[in-house]
Amino acid sequence: MKKLCLSIAALALPAIALAQTGEAEATAPSPNQIVDAATPEEWVSIPADDLLVMTLAPDRDGNAREVVIQLMPEPFSQGWVHNIKLLARSGWYDGISVNRVQDNYVVQWGDPNYDNPESGGEAKPLPYGLKVMGEDEYVSYTKNLFDSIAGQNSSDLYASQNWVRSGWPLAGDDESRWPVHCYGMVGVGRNYSPDTGSGAELYTVIGHAPRHLDRNIALVGRVIEGMEHLSSLPRGKGELGFYADFEKDKRTPILSVRIASDRIEFPMPSFEYLSTESESFARYAEARANRRDPFFIHPAGGADICNIPVPVRRVVGE
Amino acid sequence: MKKLCLSIAALALPAIALAQTGEAEATAPSPNQIVDAATPEEWVSIPADDLLVMTLAPDRDGNAREVVIQLMPEPFSQGWVHNIKLLARSGWYDGISVNRVQDNYVVQWGDPNYDNPESGGEAKPLPYGLKVMGEDEYVSYTKNLFDSIAGQNSSDLYASQNWVRSGWPLAGDDESRWPVHCYGMVGVGRNYSPDTGSGAELYTVIGHAPRHLDRNIALVGRVIEGMEHLSSLPRGKGELGFYADFEKDKRTPILSVRIASDRIEFPMPSFEYLSTESESFARYAEARANRRDPFFIHPAGGADICNIPVPVRRVVGE
Repeated sequence: MKKLCLSIAALALPAIALAQTGEAEATAPSPNQIVDAATPEEWVSIPADDLLVMTLAPDRDGNAREVVIQLMPEPFSQGWVHNIKLLARSGWYDGISVNRVQDNYVVQWGDPNYDNPESGGEAKPLPYGLKVMGEDEYVSYTKNLFDSIAGQNSSDLYASQNWVRSGWPLAGDDESRWPVHCYGMVGVGRNYSPDTGSGAELYTVIGHAPRHLDRNIALVGRVIEGMEHLSSLPRGKGELGFYADFEKDKRTPILSVRIASDRIEFPMPSFEYLSTESESFARYAEARANRRDPFFIHPAGGADICNIPVPVRRVVGE
Repeated sequence: MKKLCLSIAALALPAIALAQTGEAEATAPSPNQIVDAATPEEWVSIPADDLLVMTLAPDRDGNAREVVIQLMPEPFSQGWVHNIKLLARSGWYDGISVNRVQDNYVVQWGDPNYDNPESGGEAKPLPYGLKVMGEDEYVSYTKNLFDSIAGQNSSDLYASQNWVRSGWPLAGDDESRWPVHCYGMVGVGRNYSPDTGSGAELYTVIGHAPRHLDRNIALVGRVIEGMEHLSSLPRGKGELGFYADFEKDKRTPILSVRIASDRIEFPMPSFEYLSTESESFARYAEARANRRDPFFIHPAGGADICNIPVPVRRVVGE
C-alpha cells in the first residue's frame, strides 16, 4: 500500500496504481484503463511507408536516441509528405542537426548553414523533384469529408469545429479542414512567402499548443516515439531559441532519417493507433473530458482537442 | 539581410528581425513589439516577499541553475502560500530533489523518501505550523471580484469565463474563481483526499495546459525565470515519469529555496509584470489572438487563455 501512495502523491493517473489493487472495480475507469481494455480490432496499423525513423547522435552517456514520426495521410499536406520522403530517401537529412530549441514552443532541425552566413559553411543543395506548395495547400477543401461526425466535435476559440478523426486532431470551418498544432505535431519551417517551405526544415511542438500557427504553417505528422529526446534538449540562448554562436556544440547531430519500410534491419518497427472511430476511443475521449477516477473533485466537463491525444503503441521491434 | 532570413526561417516571431530593419513600420506590430513599447507605468513590481528563489545543483558542465517562482497573491491559495513560505524559511526544502519528469505533463520536486518505502531512507519531518487546506480552498468564492471585466473574458470547454486578470490566468463560473493550469504554473501535489497537500511536494506544468487539474489541485504560483532548468531535465522512465530505481542519479538536487526578501545577497532579484489592466496588455492580448505581422496568412481570431502569457521581466540583479 505504501507503493500505491507514491503513485497517488504523483497527482495524476492514480488509477494505474489502483488497478493493481482491485479497488478500481468500484470506481470509474481512467482514460488509460479504457485504452488498455480496447479490443485488438479497435487498433489500426500504421503503414511502414508513413513512418520516419530519425536517429540522433548518442547522448553524453552513449545512449542511443531514436525518434519515430508518423506522417499524415491523405488528404492533408501530401505535397510536403512527398518532399519529406524524397529528402529521406535521397539521404539529404543525414548529417543535419537540431538547431533551435525554444522553451514552450518548438524544437527545429535542418541544415545549420541554411540562410546562416555566420555559420561559415555552405548550405546543402536540395535534391531535384521537390514540389513547391502554395498557400491553398495549408488547408484541404474537403467540405464533405467527415460530414457524418457527431458527438466529438467542439467549437473553440480557434475554429468553429474540432475533431479527433481518422487518427488526427483536425479543425475546420464550413469549407475546409486542417490539422491542429498539438504537442508533438511536426511541421514545415518556411520563410515569409507561404510557398517557401520544402520540408528540409522541420519542427515539433514542445509546449502549449500554438494554435495560431494552424493554417499558417504546414503540419505533416507527429512524433509517436522518442519525443523526450527532442523535448529535453537544452534550450538555445540565441534569438528565437536558436543555439547562439558560442554554443554551437549544443546542436544535436542527426545521423540519419529513414522511412521504416526502407530499412533493412529486421524486425521493422511497427505501430498502431487506437481507431478514433472506435467505441473505446469515444469512451476514452469522454473520460478525458470528465475525469471520475478517485483523485478528482471537479470533472472538467470538457477537454480541448489537444488534451485528447490519440493513443499509439509499438507492436514490434522493441 | 541574410541574418533576417534566418529569423524568418525560424517560423515565428519574425517581427523581431523586422524591427531591426525598419520594415515593421509598414506592418502591424507583433505582440512582443507591443510589450517592448509599453510605458514604465504599465509595469507592476512583484513584491520580493512573493518570490521564491530555488537553487538547483549545478549542471554537468558546472553551470549554475536558479529557478524563480512568483507566488500567487490574495485571494487565491493563501493557506498553501503560507505553508510554502514556512517551509522555505525553515530550510525544509534544502536538500530535497526533483523526482519526477513526465513528458508533456509535469516536473515534480519534494522529499524523495516521502511515501516511498523503496527509497531506503526516512521521510523528512515537516515543520510545525503548516495549515491543513480543505476542498473549498481550491476555489475562491469571490463573486464580485473582477465584476467589471469586459472584453478579455472568454468561454471555453473548461469554464464559462476565463480572464487574464490581476496578473494571472483565471477562470470562473457564476459563484467562484480559480487559477488556471497553464505552462509554467506551479501547484501542490497531494494524495487522494483534497486536504493532503501541504506544499512540501510541488510541481510545474511542462506541456499542454492540463486544464482538467483546475480546481482539483491547488495552484500557488508560476515559474518566471529559469523554467528551462526544469523543462529540459531528462524524463523519468518509472511510472508517471518518476525516476526509476535504476536511474536515481538523475534526480536533480535542490540546494536551497529562499524567499527573495530574506536573501542577504545584494542586489536582491527584482521582477515586474505587465499590468493585465493596462492598455498595452489589451493590445498585446488582441495581437496574440489576431497575428497580423507579415508571416501570418490566417489570423486565428482568438487565443486561449494559456496562449496569452503575462509578460514578466527582471529589473535588477542580473
